[in-house]
Amino acid sequence: MKQSIPSKNDVEYTFKKVQSFVHRTPVLTSTLLNEISGATIYFKCENFQKTGSFKMRGAVNAIQNLSTKQKERGVVTHSSGNFAQAIALAAKNIGIKAYIVMPSTVTKIKREAVKKYGGIITISKPTLASRQVAANKIAKETGATFLHPSNNTDVILGQGTAAIELLEEHPMLDIILVPVGGGGLLAGTALAATYFGTKCKVIAGEPLEADDAYRSMLSGKIEDNVSAKTIADGLRTTLGNFNFPIIKEYVSEIIRVDEPEIIKAMQLIWERMNIVIEPSSAVPFAALLKNKEYFKNKKIGIILSGGNVDLSNLPF
Amino acid sequence: MKQSIPSKNDVEYTFKKVQSFVHRTPVLTSTLLNEISGATIYFKCENFQKTGSFKMRGAVNAIQNLSTKQKERGVVTHSSGNFAQAIALAAKNIGIKAYIVMPSTVTKIKREAVKKYGGIITISKPTLASRQVAANKIAKETGATFLHPSNNTDVILGQGTAAIELLEEHPMLDIILVPVGGGGLLAGTALAATYFGTKCKVIAGEPLEADDAYRSMLSGKIEDNVSAKTIADGLRTTLGNFNFPIIKEYVSEIIRVDEPEIIKAMQLIWERMNIVIEPSSAVPFAALLKNKEYFKNKKIGIILSGGNVDLSNLPF
Repeated sequence: MKQSIPSKNDVEYTFKKVQSFVHRTPVLTSTLLNEISGATIYFKCENFQKTGSFKMRGAVNAIQNLSTKQKERGVVTHSSGNFAQAIALAAKNIGIKAYIVMPSTVTKIKREAVKKYGGIITISKPTLASRQVAANKIAKETGATFLHPSNNTDVILGQGTAAIELLEEHPMLDIILVPVGGGGLLAGTALAATYFGTKCKVIAGEPLEADDAYRSMLSGKIEDNVSAKTIADGLRTTLGNFNFPIIKEYVSEIIRVDEPEIIKAMQLIWERMNIVIEPSSAVPFAALLKNKEYFKNKKIGIILSGGNVDLSNLPF
Repeated sequence: MKQSIPSKNDVEYTFKKVQSFVHRTPVLTSTLLNEISGATIYFKCENFQKTGSFKMRGAVNAIQNLSTKQKERGVVTHSSGNFAQAIALAAKNIGIKAYIVMPSTVTKIKREAVKKYGGIITISKPTLASRQVAANKIAKETGATFLHPSNNTDVILGQGTAAIELLEEHPMLDIILVPVGGGGLLAGTALAATYFGTKCKVIAGEPLEADDAYRSMLSGKIEDNVSAKTIADGLRTTLGNFNFPIIKEYVSEIIRVDEPEIIKAMQLIWERMNIVIEPSSAVPFAALLKNKEYFKNKKIGIILSGGNVDLSNLPF
């Protein structure tokens, strides 16, 4: 892994490899949401992906790219959410061990999902530093390879395959809109759109309450979040040195949305499309609704990143 | 319209006609629900149909079959739910009037959905008798043709087209499971399976709290419901003289499920498939889960009838 920007060959090679391990998720449209927004929207439904989110793509690619020796020793990651499930299943599928560090604050549902896929769970204190320490310790003791949920070139390349599928079916998209948290999906999508789109821009939606990516684009260096109190729990993390250079180079814009805008967009998608998406997935559509004039009459792809949501705790 | 059982030609002719006016809805599968149930299930997602339910199919067919003179005078129906929306949109699509009688107890959401599609609403007292009186009055005054939501041969034939699509994609289904309320979907599905299946049985799921169809099959005549206090609000109505003969002839069995079984099945589909279905749609899957041994290792088609649900009032 090097910090240079992956080539078209890298992206194509990844797509060929990852395809057979993930679902080709459907692309849905909604006459009513087109009417409401004034744009023509193609929703790429990664909420129907294996383990319920796009994270499966990056996890599969990272694990496939390990050497035989690395595979024997297994993998380790820290995640409270979708990457934990994805790594656990991707590892189980080829019969290798997955050590998952989860913060003590993680819900029972999420812990059980990881357990169901055979992940070996270690509980850490809820800070990012504690999680990293616990993961490092496991890596040292077991020889397992550490896989970062978003700041890893193989993960970035894997996440980009959702946009490649979308562009195969709708090659003339003007814009692809994705959410940005750790930046893996955004960087991967930017590569896919650059190499496979026809003048296709990539724009990200980001919660105002965790707007590190927006501020990083302004300052030109990776900025932190202070609090990250957003309902979009998948977007509380920050960019990294592998994905930020790609984002800086190929992403047109980052649009910030507030919490009521996220909830409204989420409810619209649930009610009008009859699909379950998690709050993070609603952020790009919220960004579109906030800037209708800009997106008017354009062909927009939106990646609905995941559908893992606690049904007993909905915001509406 | 006659009470004789429609022929294979009638069914084929309907399918050709209806196809271009409705969505060909996707068929989804879930590894996890297959594991839980022990069967191989193909879910036909009519929750993604226009107006959010299969009712659009029957509405389109009934309206297409009107004479020019009838079309000039419009149509009238009574419904608190999905058929109201379907008739309103199907009428709007060809520019004819739709008079919809809705009970005074109907929710604002449902009233607004009908209004959005251009339906002309009359509010009646909440009894079935009052609704019918109001509809008859409108028919007399305007010359509009009355269309019953389920006991009408054209409606029955239209509803059967969902099963034809399912059997085109999965011809070797052992069983198709559907919910039964008024009996239109069940009768239509039974015709489709008889004419297009390969020894494909049709079985219905029915709420124990509104088990008129179950009792009608036992007694050989149409039975009433006394209370019909079920969360499956689409299944509170009773069979009619057009659909009952078909059901008696071609339906293998009716399986009753209680309220907790319906809610559990609904929650499983929401959580594991990330789709929104209404309680009525969960009834066939609940019937399967209640009789796992019977359905074990069989190929089962389930028609998920609709997705119109009040998100602010979920049972979990």
